[in-house]
Amino acid sequence: MSDLQQLSVQALQWSGQALKVLDQRVLPATITYDEYQDAAGVAEAISSMRVRGAPAIGIAAAYGVVLSAMRHYPADNWRDSVEQDIERLAASRPTAVNLFWALEKMRALLANPSAEPITTLTALAEQIHAEDLAANQAMGERGADILGDARAVLTHCNAGALATGGYGTALGVIRSAYRRGRLQQVYAGETRPWLQGARLTVWELAQDGIPATLIADSAAAWLMKSGKIDWIVVGADRITANGDVANKIGTYSLAVLAKRHGVKMMVAAPSSTFDFSLESGDSIEIEQRSAQELLPACYLQADSLVSAWNPVFDVTPAELISAIVTERGAVIDPGKHGVRSLQI
Amino acid sequence: MSDLQQLSVQALQWSGQALKVLDQRVLPATITYDEYQDAAGVAEAISSMRVRGAPAIGIAAAYGVVLSAMRHYPADNWRDSVEQDIERLAASRPTAVNLFWALEKMRALLANPSAEPITTLTALAEQIHAEDLAANQAMGERGADILGDARAVLTHCNAGALATGGYGTALGVIRSAYRRGRLQQVYAGETRPWLQGARLTVWELAQDGIPATLIADSAAAWLMKSGKIDWIVVGADRITANGDVANKIGTYSLAVLAKRHGVKMMVAAPSSTFDFSLESGDSIEIEQRSAQELLPACYLQADSLVSAWNPVFDVTPAELISAIVTERGAVIDPGKHGVRSLQI
Repeated sequence: MSDLQQLSVQALQWSGQALKVLDQRVLPATITYDEYQDAAGVAEAISSMRVRGAPAIGIAAAYGVVLSAMRHYPADNWRDSVEQDIERLAASRPTAVNLFWALEKMRALLANPSAEPITTLTALAEQIHAEDLAANQAMGERGADILGDARAVLTHCNAGALATGGYGTALGVIRSAYRRGRLQQVYAGETRPWLQGARLTVWELAQDGIPATLIADSAAAWLMKSGKIDWIVVGADRITANGDVANKIGTYSLAVLAKRHGVKMMVAAPSSTFDFSLESGDSIEIEQRSAQELLPACYLQADSLVSAWNPVFDVTPAELISAIVTERGAVIDPGKHGVRSLQI
Repeated sequence: MSDLQQLSVQALQWSGQALKVLDQRVLPATITYDEYQDAAGVAEAISSMRVRGAPAIGIAAAYGVVLSAMRHYPADNWRDSVEQDIERLAASRPTAVNLFWALEKMRALLANPSAEPITTLTALAEQIHAEDLAANQAMGERGADILGDARAVLTHCNAGALATGGYGTALGVIRSAYRRGRLQQVYAGETRPWLQGARLTVWELAQDGIPATLIADSAAAWLMKSGKIDWIVVGADRITANGDVANKIGTYSLAVLAKRHGVKMMVAAPSSTFDFSLESGDSIEIEQRSAQELLPACYLQADSLVSAWNPVFDVTPAELISAIVTERGAVIDPGKHGVRSLQI
């Protein structure tokens, strides 16, 4: 392991025989790793949101397949049993693209094992994990190059080691920039309604000794007006061919505010985030979640005159973004150039 | 009472013998009026924040002086006892300007009672209450004129009946516009960190049958992008001679976002909010509050690498404001005209 890895908190720890999962539901009050020795347990860890973040979920599921093979091989019908577990894992979070991608890779190997299955499945799961980490680190260095002399940045939600195989996307860029000695201060929006910034991001940064300051989401404009930040650095859930970025609700707001205040805006995401089948963000459907996440509980049975509007994502148009950074390369001013240059 | 008053929830209810105070600390889960029959109780209701909002605090204190006189008159040294109670009331919230203003009016009458003191003090307290309500209603009608055909608005924090003698400033405008039949929908930002929007504003509007929808503060930009609102309507804590407005943190953010989306921005506030001694908002010092309001409790003794930046107010420059509305009149485009035309 490089010392970069040693610095970051790990959402997942693989012992060779079991998967330990950091319970993110109770962070930062309690730091608990739950240990899983079968696929059913891993599926439950995903569905209960002990582990969150699309890359981290995909990696966890891959290890879940390894645990299934360990349990069932070499019984007569072991392939059928593993296939049942794959289906169980696939059902744990039906919308996470990386989950299906990782399970497909494991399933393909299972169909044609060139050698003893436990060894080869384990090697593939570890490779999926290692490649995600390496992609984050490549992104981190590239992003830090672009940040240059920036001394303070703001991030939103948690695009960190906790959401990935380690190191993080937006927080990977921040880690790399901090290690270079220029970046001095990271602000994190608390990210209502789930408070990923308050519960996860400032905690994760503090584990690495990076000074982290929490703000109310609505204080970001005043933070920029006060001249306290040079860049905003965020992750992404989906990026369309023209460079539009779907990400956690509040990202679009930050991008508009950044433009007014001369603050630059960076999006860091692995290339698996790109959806070249969509020309622009206009075609992205925005998921609405339950009013329950926002409304104090006493309203819910009570008064039909009180409701909540709770979109999970928003779309930031490419022209408000200064740079999109991936493990394959970066695009400066995607509003002028789109992102097709990053397509393989 | 007019039917306007009957529609609004009341922070304060005066029975002629006692003051009932709605406990805003436990709204909306619990609707409790605490009854006070002496000044010490009223002072405690203010200091404990059962009642909040500068106008409401001033009115409560005036009734506190009446209760003191009822208790002590006509004992020999009754004026001394009432004076002690006035000092106690003045100490209950040391920064609320309306508190001192109301107590000064009561004290002046006490010094020269032209008739029996209970009757005259009661009449003055009721007048202070009634004048605040009348100012809100005048502001409401004027603001509704300016909103015109607007069908949906967004508000922030609670500038409502709960913060005033009844009816409200920003929510007064919204009430008047809703009664005219054009306004169909009110969105309210939850207003972190204290959640005045979630706890107070959507509840207060629902009491009047006005459809209220809560949003995360960071969703306001996406709300505007989605074309859902025509105006933003907020209150103010201080307005300087050039029309700059200090108000709850997040107001400046909304004003910048409104400008980008062609949404108009109205500030409704009584003329007592104006500070003509300050040329611009640059001279307003912004109060910072404790990190404790934002940081989950587990951070507080723990890690010096985690902190919070928690300004209570921000300043919105006049050029981002479409209209400032008071009981005396309104200024359209204060960025061009300033607000000295509203000075007596």
